[in-house]
Amino acid sequence: MPKVQLVGATGYGGLGMLELILAHPHFEISGLVARDVRPGRKISDIYPHLVGRCDLEITTVDEVNIGDDADIVVFSTPDGVSQQYARNLYDKKIRFIDYSGDFRFESQVDYASYTQKHPSIRDSIHQTEDLLSAAAYGVSELNQSAISNANIVGNPGCFAIGIILGLAPLFKQNLVAEQIASVDGLTGSSGAGKKPAPLQHFSHLNDNVVPYRVMSHQHTVEAEIALGRLGNGSRATVDFIPHLLGTTRGILNTMHINLDKTLTRENLLSIFGEFYGNKEFVRVLETAPTLKDTVSSNYCDISGFISDDGRRAVIVTSIDNLMKGQSGSALQNMNIMFGYKETTGLERGPLYP
Amino acid sequence: MPKVQLVGATGYGGLGMLELILAHPHFEISGLVARDVRPGRKISDIYPHLVGRCDLEITTVDEVNIGDDADIVVFSTPDGVSQQYARNLYDKKIRFIDYSGDFRFESQVDYASYTQKHPSIRDSIHQTEDLLSAAAYGVSELNQSAISNANIVGNPGCFAIGIILGLAPLFKQNLVAEQIASVDGLTGSSGAGKKPAPLQHFSHLNDNVVPYRVMSHQHTVEAEIALGRLGNGSRATVDFIPHLLGTTRGILNTMHINLDKTLTRENLLSIFGEFYGNKEFVRVLETAPTLKDTVSSNYCDISGFISDDGRRAVIVTSIDNLMKGQSGSALQNMNIMFGYKETTGLERGPLYP
Amino acid sequence: MPKVQLVGATGYGGLGMLELILAHPHFEISGLVARDVRPGRKISDIYPHLVGRCDLEITTVDEVNIGDDADIVVFSTPDGVSQQYARNLYDKKIRFIDYSGDFRFESQVDYASYTQKHPSIRDSIHQTEDLLSAAAYGVSELNQSAISNANIVGNPGCFAIGIILGLAPLFKQNLVAEQIASVDGLTGSSGAGKKPAPLQHFSHLNDNVVPYRVMSHQHTVEAEIALGRLGNGSRATVDFIPHLLGTTRGILNTMHINLDKTLTRENLLSIFGEFYGNKEFVRVLETAPTLKDTVSSNYCDISGFISDDGRRAVIVTSIDNLMKGQSGSALQNMNIMFGYKETTGLERGPLYP
Amino acid sequence: MPKVQLVGATGYGGLGMLELILAHPHFEISGLVARDVRPGRKISDIYPHLVGRCDLEITTVDEVNIGDDADIVVFSTPDGVSQQYARNLYDKKIRFIDYSGDFRFESQVDYASYTQKHPSIRDSIHQTEDLLSAAAYGVSELNQSAISNANIVGNPGCFAIGIILGLAPLFKQNLVAEQIASVDGLTGSSGAGKKPAPLQHFSHLNDNVVPYRVMSHQHTVEAEIALGRLGNGSRATVDFIPHLLGTTRGILNTMHINLDKTLTRENLLSIFGEFYGNKEFVRVLETAPTLKDTVSSNYCDISGFISDDGRRAVIVTSIDNLMKGQSGSALQNMNIMFGYKETTGLERGPLYP
Repeated sequence: MPKVQLVGATGYGGLGMLELILAHPHFEISGLVARDVRPGRKISDIYPHLVGRCDLEITTVDEVNIGDDADIVVFSTPDGVSQQYARNLYDKKIRFIDYSGDFRFESQVDYASYTQKHPSIRDSIHQTEDLLSAAAYGVSELNQSAISNANIVGNPGCFAIGIILGLAPLFKQNLVAEQIASVDGLTGSSGAGKKPAPLQHFSHLNDNVVPYRVMSHQHTVEAEIALGRLGNGSRATVDFIPHLLGTTRGILNTMHINLDKTLTRENLLSIFGEFYGNKEFVRVLETAPTLKDTVSSNYCDISGFISDDGRRAVIVTSIDNLMKGQSGSALQNMNIMFGYKETTGLERGPLYP
Repeated sequence: MPKVQLVGATGYGGLGMLELILAHPHFEISGLVARDVRPGRKISDIYPHLVGRCDLEITTVDEVNIGDDADIVVFSTPDGVSQQYARNLYDKKIRFIDYSGDFRFESQVDYASYTQKHPSIRDSIHQTEDLLSAAAYGVSELNQSAISNANIVGNPGCFAIGIILGLAPLFKQNLVAEQIASVDGLTGSSGAGKKPAPLQHFSHLNDNVVPYRVMSHQHTVEAEIALGRLGNGSRATVDFIPHLLGTTRGILNTMHINLDKTLTRENLLSIFGEFYGNKEFVRVLETAPTLKDTVSSNYCDISGFISDDGRRAVIVTSIDNLMKGQSGSALQNMNIMFGYKETTGLERGPLYP
Repeated sequence: MPKVQLVGATGYGGLGMLELILAHPHFEISGLVARDVRPGRKISDIYPHLVGRCDLEITTVDEVNIGDDADIVVFSTPDGVSQQYARNLYDKKIRFIDYSGDFRFESQVDYASYTQKHPSIRDSIHQTEDLLSAAAYGVSELNQSAISNANIVGNPGCFAIGIILGLAPLFKQNLVAEQIASVDGLTGSSGAGKKPAPLQHFSHLNDNVVPYRVMSHQHTVEAEIALGRLGNGSRATVDFIPHLLGTTRGILNTMHINLDKTLTRENLLSIFGEFYGNKEFVRVLETAPTLKDTVSSNYCDISGFISDDGRRAVIVTSIDNLMKGQSGSALQNMNIMFGYKETTGLERGPLYP
Repeated sequence: MPKVQLVGATGYGGLGMLELILAHPHFEISGLVARDVRPGRKISDIYPHLVGRCDLEITTVDEVNIGDDADIVVFSTPDGVSQQYARNLYDKKIRFIDYSGDFRFESQVDYASYTQKHPSIRDSIHQTEDLLSAAAYGVSELNQSAISNANIVGNPGCFAIGIILGLAPLFKQNLVAEQIASVDGLTGSSGAGKKPAPLQHFSHLNDNVVPYRVMSHQHTVEAEIALGRLGNGSRATVDFIPHLLGTTRGILNTMHINLDKTLTRENLLSIFGEFYGNKEFVRVLETAPTLKDTVSSNYCDISGFISDDGRRAVIVTSIDNLMKGQSGSALQNMNIMFGYKETTGLERGPLYP
């Protein structure tokens, strides 16, 4: 069984991957690595719901070499971390997948445009620029072939994947006027991670909706680049407004575009149906997807609507931000990389009600 | 003190007006009227939080004449109800304000276009068509003069008022390309009223986002008509997608438009600042409004943003759907009708946290 | 593979069992049966999150014979339903498990005391009184042997199982003074099922806590009987106050007892540890269980505390009301009845965060 | 108009008092004081919902003398702060009210027993021990006379006041067996204040119930002392288990006692009715109070129930923890201290739905 070393094991991203691996028939955990953890601390000390399910000790970054005893390393870490280990892992032919923006971009130019929108990245120069072209961008449904051949996968941003999956069929057919999309993203709090912060303080967020970083969120960049390449080649424009909601899990994106030719709703849904025909995790629906219908699963639910005059479309996608928006996609990518069935270990369904 | 007869007193709309009147120095309740209420039933039997605050008995529609002992009648009732009493009240010069769509339109043509989008109105012919032109559309900030002179006020729809207040300054200046706006509305559950229903069932709605009636909500009609008249005269187009959220109060509208000339953010905010300069209930903000910052108050908070190329704008408005979106606006209109200061009885602020 | 006929398939209880069976290696669904369902209706029409996972058609009670093509029938139905089919199934040696109170009691006397507390049972005479003694009460951890031999299992009430598992070790050792316990139960909304009702109306329940049926909930009866039998034989007394919370899943019971001899906390936890030593679904914790740490799983988490003078104990239990409190226990019982490992198909963990 | 200096103005406690004073006809704010605030910072910078309602600048503790330009100082500060200023204010005959435990106790002995349960007080010796006896404990309904004569008022703890008001009538009549009560307290998150922390992190608390500090919460001490003095004089015993809920406001206490003589429910309710006959903020109800029926108001709602054998009682109280549990009680006490009607400025009702 391939061994997985999990770096950044104590955050929500690490937790999500850990729980998926525990239930996966073909992968096993060889190590949980984190910073700032007291010696002897078990993952179930941090997450009591794991008691009796996983009581592994966490090792600190200082105690272990990244890549030792691992067939694949999963970095559930902030931007800038996997760059530091990339050369060594690549040279040793140890595959890795990264949750941050470090390996989502093909070139230094694209990476730099990303860092400019990022609220905390100081250095816009990538440390291992030459490895960018060796990495695959991990939208499993679009890049399956590249992912299967890559030793490095940049897992997509949680907002980006829902936008890309929702608009890809229309960009592919060059239906989006001026390649401009207006997107309102509604997200649960868990995308911001485990660390307490004013925006995620319960008394503030409960019963609230908080638009933030209006038209300046860094996930926009990867969506604009990915969609543009599917379309006419030039970068798309996405006016993206994230809204933080008083719920824990899920991202629902509502997306508005002008069409370059008129469509009926039947046209629209059949475009989606054909594009995603054999993709098990994309469900094209007659009705608008709801947030809760994907939570806890790896589905991306999609539906679309057309204005009365046939000139504008509205696309809605729903995902669990910690699954299809993070660890679920990562495991799907790992399945592709190791030649397993894409859905292996991802059978868990939505939790309703 | 002018006497208020409240029809439809047992719903959330009636409750909201009742509580405002109880705290108002110049109005008093002369009667609470409802259908299907057992004899002797007090309003505090239905709403226990009113115990000791208001223990008035409710009278049924059969026991009382609408308009008796009243200087103004407030209809917090479904579409079609106030039409039945309108002629009689009008002839007796008893003013009334209606929460439904019955008197929001100037003409039978407009009313008919509304009824076509309405999920439950059967008859598109207004019963008192000639009175439509006698009614004022109750967006206090835009129609103050008409409201002050009207004996009939059609209180605006909860979604419509947030859309209209957010876009009015831009339509007024003919800045909106093709007069088309794309609007994502996020609403709490209370707009659907007190009656249990599958969409508002707690286990379904909690932690959920449910887009519904995509580009087919009836409130769109009044927004399109009102905005169009502020603009070039022809009806505007609003692609409106309401999203039901797992929260009780509040509506946040995020609105996307293409601009007919490029603007900076400073331009945009100054347009809003000038338009609403002396309006106490509209707050133009530097940061995006949040939902909770208006809840329980009569404010409409607004901010706007401009795309990097200056060609597109995003406007966000936040209101309490039961206040500025319903009873708060109604009382503001009543203050205007009776010559009181607009803010009287509406001093209650947002409830935070 | 044994075939499962699911009666009452469209409620939350039926849904829960359906999803568990779909993931179970040894059972298969042979039919979904419900009342009041339109012809041709699929379960995924009612629950869109099932699209692509289970699109089975539902048959109405009129179209099918209960027990046909089934090795076991699961009644996820209101009180009084399984009684009507019990004789026929029993005579045909078709096993069944019932979610209501129909087969939780050994005798007509006990059943009658239950019906007196039940808000909607009219007839206190059981229709198949002689079959009561043939049924096992389905608390898997306490009655494993009886369940494995029974053809009828009465699945416990969601409140009852958390109370019983939390107090059983203390009653077993006759430590509970006068056999009296004071219990505050906190429950999510899903226990009330799918049907909209005023108590479960979102605008009412959100951010609310609603104590209801104070010391008169019918689940108390089975807890009092079960605990009494573990103790000195006479029926226990449970002062039970259910509190409805603004959350969907989970029941947390906080239970207060006077002790017949002084204990330390170490004593208490070791009593629990020994009692549940090999039971995989009961986790005895050092810290107080939280609600969310069991949600989506079949765990019952327990901890206990002792007053400074050693004379009183506080026990806290947490379960997912739809899993250990309903379908999870039911499947655990089915595993026992068919000789499978108790945990088969119940590996799904808590969903956190 | 008496001037109020508000120390600790930027926390939820300070915010609550500020908003009440803004609406009060007889008090005015003379200064907002806080620690760690940048120069020129307005209170509406910290709380945007105040924009246009209160844009006062905050002064730091270093810039101003506590007590200057004030007829009363309100300390909405942690334990230990008001002690530092108490002597100086007392000597200058400037009244003050404190939200912490600093002046809730009559004697050093009582204070020390409180500090032992407190999670963060290091020094169990009060700095101005001699002033303890000069202070009144601010449960307005019980100590009106003492409060009206005191220059120092120790505002009660949010859990304590709900417990004390719920049990006072029974202790007063010596009905509580052994003076022992078992109390489950359910609280919203806002009692923990504005500072982000793991327990109040949205992703953790949403949909959760977290019992904490089981039988070791410091508020227990003041309840035990206050109730004991109403009863036989010896300190009562309260087994108190706080439960943190996924809601923002409100505390509901469910309390179990054994009775020293049998009572009917009629007896019980009439004991409460007589005890609180003329107290406007205590509502004795026939049905169990709900959390939301008091939120935003200064009410304490109470009801009680009796076991079938008449030997045990269950009392339920509901308050808004930031109103009756904090700033509402404080203002009520200030009204008493300055001879105003107790309810002045506290007319705001519950916010429902």
